[in-house]
This record gives sequence, C-alpha cells and structure tokens, in this order.
Amino acid sequence: MKVKPIVLKLGGSVITVKEKPFTPNKEAIRRLAKEIKKAEVKSLILIHGGGSFGHPLAKEYKIKEGYRDSSQIVGFSKTRQAMASLNKIVLDALIQEGIPAVAVQPSAFVVTNNGRIQHIETETILGLLKLGVVPVLYGDAVLDSALGFTILSGDQLTSKIALELDAEKIVVGVDVDGLYTADPKVNSSAHLIQCITFEELKRLQHKIGKAEVTDVTGGMLGKVLELIPAVAHGIRAIIVNASKPNNVYKALKGEEVTGTMIKASETVAKPN
Amino acid sequence: MKVKPIVLKLGGSVITVKEKPFTPNKEAIRRLAKEIKKAEVKSLILIHGGGSFGHPLAKEYKIKEGYRDSSQIVGFSKTRQAMASLNKIVLDALIQEGIPAVAVQPSAFVVTNNGRIQHIETETILGLLKLGVVPVLYGDAVLDSALGFTILSGDQLTSKIALELDAEKIVVGVDVDGLYTADPKVNSSAHLIQCITFEELKRLQHKIGKAEVTDVTGGMLGKVLELIPAVAHGIRAIIVNASKPNNVYKALKGEEVTGTMIKASETVAKPN
Repeated sequence: MKVKPIVLKLGGSVITVKEKPFTPNKEAIRRLAKEIKKAEVKSLILIHGGGSFGHPLAKEYKIKEGYRDSSQIVGFSKTRQAMASLNKIVLDALIQEGIPAVAVQPSAFVVTNNGRIQHIETETILGLLKLGVVPVLYGDAVLDSALGFTILSGDQLTSKIALELDAEKIVVGVDVDGLYTADPKVNSSAHLIQCITFEELKRLQHKIGKAEVTDVTGGMLGKVLELIPAVAHGIRAIIVNASKPNNVYKALKGEEVTGTMIKASETVAKPN
Repeated sequence: MKVKPIVLKLGGSVITVKEKPFTPNKEAIRRLAKEIKKAEVKSLILIHGGGSFGHPLAKEYKIKEGYRDSSQIVGFSKTRQAMASLNKIVLDALIQEGIPAVAVQPSAFVVTNNGRIQHIETETILGLLKLGVVPVLYGDAVLDSALGFTILSGDQLTSKIALELDAEKIVVGVDVDGLYTADPKVNSSAHLIQCITFEELKRLQHKIGKAEVTDVTGGMLGKVLELIPAVAHGIRAIIVNASKPNNVYKALKGEEVTGTMIKASETVAKPN
C-alpha cells in the first residue's frame, strides 16, 4: 500500500522573530526539528513561511505586486536570498536531528500566473519521498507569467502539493491556537473554532467578505481559505499553535490537540 | 535582436580551498564577483562547482554511484545542504557587488537518467534572464531515474544549458591555464593547448582513451569533453585560469586572454 504523505506547514511567525528582521527563532526551530524527528512520519513534506526574513524585503520592493520597474530587481534577488538563508537554518536544524531533509527551491520549478500556481511538477518531490527523504519547501519569490514575478506563499504551496500528492493530512503550525471568530490578539471575545467544515468555511468567507479577511481573524482566515482546494478533495487539515511545545508532534501523530480541524462536509464524499 | 547569454562556469577548485573541507575561498569569490560586475554582461548565467564543499561528502557516501542502501540517504541530504551553503556564499558576494543574482537549485527541476540530463526545463532561467537577473546554478546531488540519485556536475549543466539556450559563448574558469597536453602540475613537459577544434578534441579523446582521461590531463579533458555537445552546435568555449585576476573579466569581455579556446572545426557550419 502506498503511504500517503503528511504535509506540514510551519508559519514564518513561528520560526522567526517577527519584530526583528532576518532573525530566526532558533529555539523554536530546534524544538520543532526534535518534534518532527520524534513523530517518525513515514512520508513527510515540510513547507515553511518567510516571517521576518522574507516579508520586510518583499514589502519594501513590492515583489508580490509584480514587476513595475528595474529598481525592484535587486529586491527580487535579495528576497530570494533571504528565503534561502532561512531555509538553510531550518535544514541545518533538521539534519542536526538526523532527519534526511533536503531543500527543494520552489522558484526553481514553479512559475505562477497572476500569483496562482497553474501546474506543479511533482516528480522531484515524489522521488525524494520514495527515497525516505523529507523535501523542505518554502514561500518564495517566483516568476509569474502575467506579473513578471510575485510572491508564492507557503500556504498556497501547501494546499497545492497536498492536493497533487493526495496527502493524508495537512498540519499547519502557526503562532495562535487556530482559527478564531475574531482576532484573539486584539479581541477578548474571540473564541477558537475547533472544527469547521468546508461549507461552513465558505459561509464564513462570504459573511466576513474578502476585503476584511486579513484583519478580522488576525490573518488566519486567509491562510485557511488557501486550504479549501485540498479540503474539498477530502484532505483533512488541522491548524495548531506551533509556538507551544508538542502541538506539532501531537498533530503529526494524530493525537488529540488544541486547534482548528478543517474537513470536507458530510455531504462531500471523500474520493478514493 | 535577442541577446544571447554567456554561460560562465566557475570551478569548485577556484572558489573553495581544495584541501580544507567546507572552506570557501572568500577572496577569490569576492574578486570574481567584482570581475563579473565590471564585465557588465547583458545576459549571464553563472554555474559553479562544489570543490571542498560537495566533493568530500559525495565521495564519502558514494552519491555519484547511486542508491545502494539507506545509509547513504543522510549523505545525500548533507551533500545537498553543503552545495546550498557554498551557493549562498557565492550569491552573497554577487549581491554585495550589486549584481541581481538569484540561486536556481538544479536538483529542484532536473532529474537525470544514468547520470545524464535528458531534458532541462529552461522556462525559469529564460524568465530570469529576461528580467535582467543572473541565474546561478551549481553542481548538485540530484534524483536519477535509473540510479535513484547521483551527482550532476556543473560541467554537464554548463554544456546543456548553453546548448538549450543557444549561448553566445561558454567561459570556464579553472585553477590551471587551460587544457594541457599532460598534467602541468606533475609533468614539466606539458604544454598549453591554446586552440583546439571539436574534431581535434575527439581525436585527442580517442588517443588518450576514456579510462585515463582524468589522470593524463589533470582532470581537464573530462571537463572539456562535457562541452562537446555545445561546441558541436557552434558555441565557442574558452577555458581560463580563474585563480589569476582579470582572466574571467577578459574572457567575458572577449578580450585576449591566456587559455584554451575550443571551437567547432571549420567544416562544421555554425547554425543560425
């Protein structure tokens, strides 16, 4: 029987120090590497965000918005290099724990169209999984056939790869406990949504409206909406607080853990 | 008119300290970054070797020979990471000089068959060149459809990319003055071949015999033979000593420089 891979996304806010540009949270990275090692997942893909490595440069040079003039080019180059630097730190920690992980640079093989992945070549990732290697991808500054270049988020990559590889599940590690009804960092009445179906999620999206998505839930709903294609396909996703010890371990093992479970609604049959 | 790219290969022996594992030759890297900057090539692709970063690990774990048992997997992971580390040092130096360079990880998009590239997707490299960015590739540990994994040399990559992109020329920077009739490091009667045609090269290959290739010319003939497909296509290649200042600059600019020029013989018409 073919082992289905688990796709683990680690948010940039977890593995970097948000307020300090280009500062990794080495303690969190080391702890998470240990949790991943301990979980002994047979087939694992890791995808991480950019946090304080990728975001400041991407913002300064408006990389997400696409090519406007040649002054952005140096920013494109620097953003790529910053992401590669963070990736190296993550890889070093994984290898230190004895995890046979290898970097797979998204920008080397993904070209988006208006910010969206049209097609992703999975031959390399599948080949690595077959060897027992953990492919590590990340949010990256990629070429875009319409915009020249843009930012490909780790969230979009997570959903697309999980879908293409028919993943067993998606684990998303962030710096909050999951999806809240409002931003828990600013609104004390916000409460954690422990389980939400694909259909409820679509209703929530409609209710909140696209424009306010980022603010209202502290940016979480935007991340969650990226997961819809994979969830609609029948892949469960769980969002946990990766800043708290053992949550990622528990989520990988399928143990009970505080977080938000997202699944296809009862009426959507899980494909074979 | 479309600008044809120049493909510059920098040998691992130039950019690392050969005898010391994982030691970059930072002075050489910085100098070469300055030479590249000064040359102001309109369309440039840089490819570098592994030197003391890639080779010791690749050798220890027999990565080139392919997958034999699971004990090699950690070596595959470490070799990849070592190459990414060297690449980061090269990129940092280029960016420091204001060159908008970006890494393009070969193993993310190339799968070889018995050690040979069957097909290379050039969309990303072309897209970067169009933006005025310098793509930087390197010898890497890649997946191989027959062997499981193997080492893809920077030399093979250089030839293949030059061919696919119909390069203006190839500049190969090594730590000797060019191709010699014997190994100049051990044989005082060895003399530099200043110009060699494709046909003479094939005769030389036949005379020396494949088995002895590496030893007889100090490893240079093996590198040169990789260039044959590109040279046969009409692309000039010049081998220069990149350990000596200004040679790479001169070769990029098309100025007179000591080295070995390799070109298609007179009877081979240069394609349009």
